[in-house]
Formats: sequence, structure tokens, C-alpha cells
Amino acid sequence: MKGGATAPPGGAPGVIGRIEHTNLRPEASAADVDRLCSEAVTWGFFGVCVNPARVARAAARLEGTGVRVVTVCGFPLGAGLTETRVLEARHAVEEGAREVDVVIPIGRLKDGDAAGVAADLAAVVRASKAANPSALVKVILEVGLLTEDEIRSGCRLAAEAGADFVKTSTGFGPGGATPENVALLRAAVGDRLGVKASGGIRQYRQALALIEAGADRLGTSAGVSLAMEQRAAT
Amino acid sequence: MKGGATAPPGGAPGVIGRIEHTNLRPEASAADVDRLCSEAVTWGFFGVCVNPARVARAAARLEGTGVRVVTVCGFPLGAGLTETRVLEARHAVEEGAREVDVVIPIGRLKDGDAAGVAADLAAVVRASKAANPSALVKVILEVGLLTEDEIRSGCRLAAEAGADFVKTSTGFGPGGATPENVALLRAAVGDRLGVKASGGIRQYRQALALIEAGADRLGTSAGVSLAMEQRAAT
Repeated sequence: MKGGATAPPGGAPGVIGRIEHTNLRPEASAADVDRLCSEAVTWGFFGVCVNPARVARAAARLEGTGVRVVTVCGFPLGAGLTETRVLEARHAVEEGAREVDVVIPIGRLKDGDAAGVAADLAAVVRASKAANPSALVKVILEVGLLTEDEIRSGCRLAAEAGADFVKTSTGFGPGGATPENVALLRAAVGDRLGVKASGGIRQYRQALALIEAGADRLGTSAGVSLAMEQRAAT
Repeated sequence: MKGGATAPPGGAPGVIGRIEHTNLRPEASAADVDRLCSEAVTWGFFGVCVNPARVARAAARLEGTGVRVVTVCGFPLGAGLTETRVLEARHAVEEGAREVDVVIPIGRLKDGDAAGVAADLAAVVRASKAANPSALVKVILEVGLLTEDEIRSGCRLAAEAGADFVKTSTGFGPGGATPENVALLRAAVGDRLGVKASGGIRQYRQALALIEAGADRLGTSAGVSLAMEQRAAT
């Protein structure tokens, strides 16, 4: 599976190794970002997920640690111009982001403009990988705003655009990750793309259920408490 | 007052003429945007406020009507890179936006990085006015996330950057427009800048109270129902 988490030590379900420790709050301070990075190193999380304005800082803090910097693009509304999104993705990768989570153009998907969505996503993927060929791109579907048909169509367009992952939610919209919508994404992309569950992940048991349903990665701001639960459970 | 609404016919408090009829929902379709524009023309609103991806469409629909196209930048998190925000503002104005509502870099303001905030806002103002010298820039403070000191500091930085308006809220964060925070913004900017109230404006009486507190403009998705109330009241 593309970009999937490595098997955890001891054969545990590997919640910790799949966590993208996330702080996308607009009011997050530099000190908050620094703490997020320290916690990710301490606990051995897969990565941190921060806003574009914090990528350079996080990349500097995490250099040499193996913890990846993930950021977002066109976030959280997916209602920007392609030119802006392309520049945002390119800058983010140039500043040290290894992965870019881009919101699908939600309105264009609603309009049925598949060609427009495909062209937009392909441009973001191209810009990210031009800046660093090993950069990964995840397409956020914001499933709470989409019909099942739109979700399937979005997954297909993400795959065709050369994205590496699909992702359930921004965490700022309605709804979040459920085993049902993770399974829907997994069924839509098969084993060609990774699946990231995000939005409202707070409990270890819930994280296990999402992994069981097909999630390779977990985007959550509750990483430390999930990790403590995993420690206690294994 | 810079960019303030013109006096309404009949001396009424002029809610209608101050309304920026707003649809920033990520799932807004092209048809939704078309309806927003038609309603704005029908009711004589000041403008429409749409996401960047919808500016060109709204500008085409509203050409020659006198209804202004307003859009947003760095919205709603204010956590993007200056380069991206500058490009977003420039493209928006080039595509027909007459006003750009840009979210203040909230995290940098929290960090106490006044110089960084000032430079960012000045760059966005410059880019907008380079694309169209009559373009106006409003700085969204997202008051629900800020202390009173941060609000005052944000207002000062907006004025120094050459912005035309300050605005209370994105409508996506905590809290919205209240007479208290409109009065706080008005006191901070005096008569040098306009004040736009936004976030949760649903009732005509509430709109009147915001105008009384100092609001020149009202950003709301409830424009039609406010206008009906004004018609009934006058």
C-alpha cells in the first residue's frame, strides 16, 4: 500500500506509527507548533500536520528526526483558484513539507465539472512533485458535504490526477472519520492509494476501528492521549 | 467614511444598502452563486461575497448592475504564506473582485510578530491595488479568537498597511458580530477606516444595532430575509 505506515513493534495495531499529529487551529502560536513537534518526536508519530505558515518552522525543528512535516492546501474550503493552490503546494514542499493534503474543489465537484476537478488536482500534484519528487499528495474529500456518488467520483479523480492518498475530512466541516466512510474510500481506491482518516479521532478504540476499516494514517490532535492508551493496552 | 454605504432612500437606516450578500460555503454550486447574484440585483444590495473560485462567474453576472463583487483571501484560517495570499488577492481583483476581505495572520498576531503581520497585510493591499487602484481591502480580525489588545493591535496594523476596512469575523470561527465588538473596532479605527460586521447576522433589529454601533457594512447570508424585514418596517 502506497505510503502506508510501517508495521509497529510487537505486532500491535500500530496506532502510534500512523498518527499525523495535527494542529491546524488558526490561533496556534509558534510555541504550540514547537510543542507539537516535540511531542511527535517523543512519541514516534509518523508526522505532524500544520498550516502552511508553520511549515518552515516545523521542518527546522524536525530535521533529522524522521518525523514528517505534512501541511494543507486550499484548506479548509477547497474554493480557491487553481493558480493559488499550485503556488501554495509548491511553496510548502520547498519549505520542507513532505506531504500536502489538498482539499478537493468541492463546489466544482458539486457542479459535476469532473474535467475541472481533474485538471486542478493534477496541477497541484505536479507542482508538489516538481518541488520534491518524493512528496506525497493527499486529496481531502470532506465526505460530510458529499454524496456517496460524489465521494466515489472524487476518489477516481484523485487517483487519475496522480495523488497518493485520499482523506476523509478537514476537521473543520460537518462530520469526521467513521469506519463506514473509511471503508467507502478504501473500496473506491482499492490498494492503489492510501487512505487517511481524519476528523474527530479521539479514542484509541475508535482509531483501531478506522485502521480495521482500511485507514493507513490517522490525522488527529489527540495523538498524545491515543499513544498513552496504546501504551497501556499493549 | 471610507467606502461607507450611501444614505438609503427615505432616510431609513439603510440595512439593504450595506449588505454584502454572502455565500462562502464550500459546497456552494455555480447555481447557488447565480441565485446569490440575482437576489443582490433584485434587492439592491451593496455587493455579493463569494469564494475566489466564484469571482469570475459573479463578476460576469453582475457586470453593469452596480452590485460589487467581494471575495476573501487566506480564508478562513489566516494561516497561509504571504506569497500565496498576495497571488490570491491579485488574481481575485484581476478576475473582477472590487473588494478583498483578507484574514489577518492570526498565529503571527498571537506570536506578537507585529512587523510580520504588518508586512503581510501591506503586501496584500499592494497587490490588490496594483491590480485595480480602486480595489478596497478589508482586514478580518476574527475577534472571537483574539484578546481586546490583539484586536486593537490588529486594527492599528490594518490601518498602517493601507487597508480600507476592518471586519469582525469570518463566520467560520467562534463568535460573530456583536454591537460590542463593532464598537471596539470603530473606536480602534476612528473614521479613518470602514467597519464591516459579519458572522451570525440574521435579524433586522440586530442589523440596526450593529449599524448604530458603527458598522458601515453587513456581511450576511440572510440578506433576503433582512431586506424583507426592512421593507415591512419602513
